[in-house]
Parts: sequence; C-alpha cells; structure tokens
Amino acid sequence: MKLGDAGELKVLERLRERFPSGSRDVIIGIGDDAAALDINGQALLLSTDTMTEGIHFDLSLFTPYQIGYKLVSSNVSDIFAMGGRPKWSLLGMTLPPETDEAFLEAFLDGVSDGLKRYGLTLVGGDVTGSTGPLTVSLTVSGTVEGKIIRRCGASAGERVYISGPVGEASCGLEFLKRLGRSVSLELGEELHLAVEWESVEPLLKRFLLPEACDLSEHSAHITSMIDISDGLFLDLTRLCRESSVGVRLYEEKIPVTGALEAVSAFLGISPYRFITSGGEDYQQLFTSGKAFPAFAEIGEITETGMYIVRTDGSEEEIRPEGYQHFVYP
Amino acid sequence: MKLGDAGELKVLERLRERFPSGSRDVIIGIGDDAAALDINGQALLLSTDTMTEGIHFDLSLFTPYQIGYKLVSSNVSDIFAMGGRPKWSLLGMTLPPETDEAFLEAFLDGVSDGLKRYGLTLVGGDVTGSTGPLTVSLTVSGTVEGKIIRRCGASAGERVYISGPVGEASCGLEFLKRLGRSVSLELGEELHLAVEWESVEPLLKRFLLPEACDLSEHSAHITSMIDISDGLFLDLTRLCRESSVGVRLYEEKIPVTGALEAVSAFLGISPYRFITSGGEDYQQLFTSGKAFPAFAEIGEITETGMYIVRTDGSEEEIRPEGYQHFVYP
Repeated sequence: MKLGDAGELKVLERLRERFPSGSRDVIIGIGDDAAALDINGQALLLSTDTMTEGIHFDLSLFTPYQIGYKLVSSNVSDIFAMGGRPKWSLLGMTLPPETDEAFLEAFLDGVSDGLKRYGLTLVGGDVTGSTGPLTVSLTVSGTVEGKIIRRCGASAGERVYISGPVGEASCGLEFLKRLGRSVSLELGEELHLAVEWESVEPLLKRFLLPEACDLSEHSAHITSMIDISDGLFLDLTRLCRESSVGVRLYEEKIPVTGALEAVSAFLGISPYRFITSGGEDYQQLFTSGKAFPAFAEIGEITETGMYIVRTDGSEEEIRPEGYQHFVYP
Repeated sequence: MKLGDAGELKVLERLRERFPSGSRDVIIGIGDDAAALDINGQALLLSTDTMTEGIHFDLSLFTPYQIGYKLVSSNVSDIFAMGGRPKWSLLGMTLPPETDEAFLEAFLDGVSDGLKRYGLTLVGGDVTGSTGPLTVSLTVSGTVEGKIIRRCGASAGERVYISGPVGEASCGLEFLKRLGRSVSLELGEELHLAVEWESVEPLLKRFLLPEACDLSEHSAHITSMIDISDGLFLDLTRLCRESSVGVRLYEEKIPVTGALEAVSAFLGISPYRFITSGGEDYQQLFTSGKAFPAFAEIGEITETGMYIVRTDGSEEEIRPEGYQHFVYP
C-alpha cells in the first residue's frame, strides 16, 4: 500500500499507535492541535506545521510575503485551538539553491509581520538546501493560563459554534487559480474585474493572509475546540470522533457572507461546497453548554451519528470530506 | 545573489539580524545549538533539525531505519551540546506519494529505537504530502538541571577537548559512496571486502547510526560547547567567533582511530582531511580550565587567530572548511 492511498490521517493514526505518550509530564500527546507538557506546574504547548511548495502553496499564486505570513497564522491557530497563548517559535527552511535574496527577504517580512501580529518571538532557525521544492515549517510553543481545551471534551446536548464564516478561503483559492497569478494584497494591489473587488478581496485575504482566532478569554465555557484547517466537515468529524459523540448541524445557521455568495456565483460553484469541505479558514470550531451570542451557533452535539439538516428540511449524513494531503494531491 | 552563493551560515546570520530576541523569557535566542527559554524558573531547551533526501541522505545509501535513527541522534546532540536533557519531541514528515508502508514502518522503527535510546517521548507529529524529496524533521525540547552551556563561554588559556574521535563519519560516507548501496547494520549485515570489516563497520555505524554524546555530568566545569555536525574546523570556528577568542590546535593530539587509518588508506585519502573537514560525527567540542583526562585535549584557547600545529612542527591557519548546504550541494 502506498501512502497516496492511505491518506495522512492514517499515517497520524499509525504514529499514535506506535508512540503512546507514557510519560507523566505529557498532559496531551499525539492527536490534538498541539501537545501539552507539564513544566514545573506550567502547561506548555508545542506544535509544528509545515508548508511545502506544490502541496500547500503554489509559487505562481502566492507572493513570498504571503507564504511567510500564512505560515505563522496557521501555526498560531493550533495554539489558539488549545486555549493557549503563543510565545516562542522556531523557523525551518528547506530552500532550493535558486532561491534568491529578494525572495528570502520578502518571505521573512511576512514571517516578521505575522510574529508581531501575535506577539511571538523567533528563538531559533534551521536552514538547509534542497534539491526539491521550497518547504517551510514553524514550531510554536506557548503557555496556557486557564484551561487547556481539547478536541475530546464535547458532550451530548451542548451547542456547536464557529468563530466566523467558513468557505471563504477555499473560494478565494478557486478564484486565484482561475486568475492564474499572485495578488500583492500586502502592497494594496486591487483588481478590476467583472466581479466587484469588495467581494473578492476579503476572500483572497482569508486564503493568502489568514488571521488566527484567539478565543482564550472564553476558555472557561468552551468544552472542546479544533481549528478549521482542513474543512468544516472533516475537522468536525475529528472533534466528534475524539469526543465519542454525534452532531446535528443546520445549514441555515451556518453563516454565508455576501462576498462568498457573490464570488461563488461568479465562479459558478455552490457556496455549500466551499462551506462544508473547503479548508484553511482558520476559524475555531467549538462546543459549549453556554449561549455565545457573539458567535454563530450552527448545531448541537448528539449521542451518535453525524447529520446536517439542509435548508429544504432533509437530513443528510455528514461525510468527512475535506482537504487531505496524498488523497487529493 | 542566489543563496547557492551565500551559504546557509549567511542565511542564519540574516535571521539573527532580523529577529533579535528581545523577550525577557528568552535566555538564548537564534545562534546556538538550541534556544533556551525561562518557564517559571525552569530552563527549557528547544531545537529543530531537518534531514532532506539528496542533501542529508541518499535513499540508495541509507536504509529507512537509519534515516529515522540518525534524525533522532542528530537532534538530541544539539540538546546535549547545551548541557541539557532531551525529553519531548515532535516529528515532521513530508512524504512523496510513492512512499510505501514498509518504508514508513522501518523509518518509524529507527525513530522509535532512537527515542528509546535517549529516553525521549514523541508528543506530536505533522504529516504532509510532497511533490519532491522525502524530508523529515524533529523538534526536540528538553530541560537543563545544571548550567546552560553556550558556544560563547570560552576564554584564553582554557583547554580544548573533543569527546571522541572525529572524521570517522565522513570516511564512512566516502566508503559507502564507493560501495554504492546501503548496508543494513541494524540487521547485523556484514561485508566481506579487501579491507577488514572490523575497520569498516565502526565508520559506517558512526555515519549511519551515530550516537549523541551527553556530557551533562561535567557541565559545571565546561565553559563552552558545540556539537561537531559540520566538521571540526567549521564548528570550532563557530565556537571561537561566538566566544571572541582564538585557538591553537595540535594535530598530533587529535585522536585517530585504527579504523579511520585503515579505511582512509584503503580509500587513498588522507585521514587529516576527514578529521578536519568531515562532518556528522556528533562528538562534542568543548573548552574548560580543568583537566579532563577522560577526553582528548587537542589544543588551547588563545586571544586571537586560529592555528593548527601540524605534526612536522609547521603552523597553519585554520580555515572553516566543512560541510555547508548550498555551498557544496
């Protein structure tokens, strides 16, 4: 069996089987957004994520600044998903020899602005050459002052929330693919097209320069959380599996922005597809027994089974479709 | 300017300029073997290192087990170089889609044996697909109970030590290149050649299955330390630069094993070249004002200038030759 057939979830599952974390100072091991360690009574989070050319980004669609900024946001999102505060980071770069200095500087500008945005310090780096594609990774460490929020804490009867709209990033990617070139949002570039820029810009920004969402002030009332990096259905499936619960979502309750509607229509693709299966929005998906009027309540946790009630009243089973490396390369 | 002309040291230098670690809880930032953080009074080390196919290993010369084991040892070596105790790790894998399950399992066997060897727990992992070469990385975190040892602590008048012989790993690599295939040392494979296996085996082992060297019991008397990953001269140059000192080495004092002499002769290459410029031995290079009879004293720290006294009595300037990615791809 090749890994192309198995998918990265299977590889992660295998890692978890092979490396049980028996150590007493490991609060959370493999399988959540970040690991949690006990350092003299202080909870420390540790997480790492890699972005590789041809899989996570295409050099014809991203500016180097955007690669750097997104690398930081996507990693910080994992720390926020645990209720933590990101503090320190290590940058890894595997650079093809033709990488030039201007590219490197622009990439580091993006990393630098991302680090400043979240109050992170870069404390180390590893640079190596590569015969293949550009690969960048960030390891982020942070602390948790309140409760550590896990994927496995949801219970039947609780409500399901998302921190903001989903589907925008993948719609932005689809738009960008049709455009076929990068857009320098960070330099204020605007496009004049058949669809209004006011709709396109937030979607491109969501995909190219995403913002990680910090819900730590609400930690006490959140029972489980995961950041939506691989799509609503796939990440919701992960949360439900880890919590051994089911879920019922209501399509009508899922927020759809005017921008997403406009650009989806322009592209001729149903927004439902972007909302349920598109990844990289970096919103937080969380559960609580409490009402959170500031966030979109999209469903409820049940004992078993995963369903979505469509706007026409029909109930469909939720299938964990989403972006998995290897499976949809 | 392309990075191929600049070398990875320049890139690291640039990172250091751009990302000064102004945070109070950062004890050591970019530029040493590992970063050191202050977590409620507990010193925590953090380090990451990547191995990529075609740069750090060749799939025709390494078994997957060896890639996994070496990944752990080379990373643990950075923690030992700071006087620390490695405890937790995160595994990153960027896998080409044609990677098969048998390869992955053998790689994880090597990682697993390495982790057990050093008492490390794997607490997280990141798996992504790749359109290019296999790239694996490990982030290691550990604690320091005694003193944190830095590269910058050497003073004129102190003695220079190495924890064991150097040059064996690069001689092993040269032998392996001529052989043109991998050797399953972990399965007890032996070769019958014109040069005795008793000499070849330890060199191959040093290169393929290196052991990291823990000197933490001597921390109190060590003033500076660096692990020799890129060659004696290059890593010594780093230590001297960071400490703003010079050095005088004595060729006759540098240990040369019988195995290195025998295989160098067989290959027709001077052992001096392997000893001074060959990397990946993962011995520790350290300085102290105290006598350490258990280790090879190879020279002394001076005010300025870097020289080696050859066996014929002549004095040569030390040039930082060693393995740099990009420069000798």
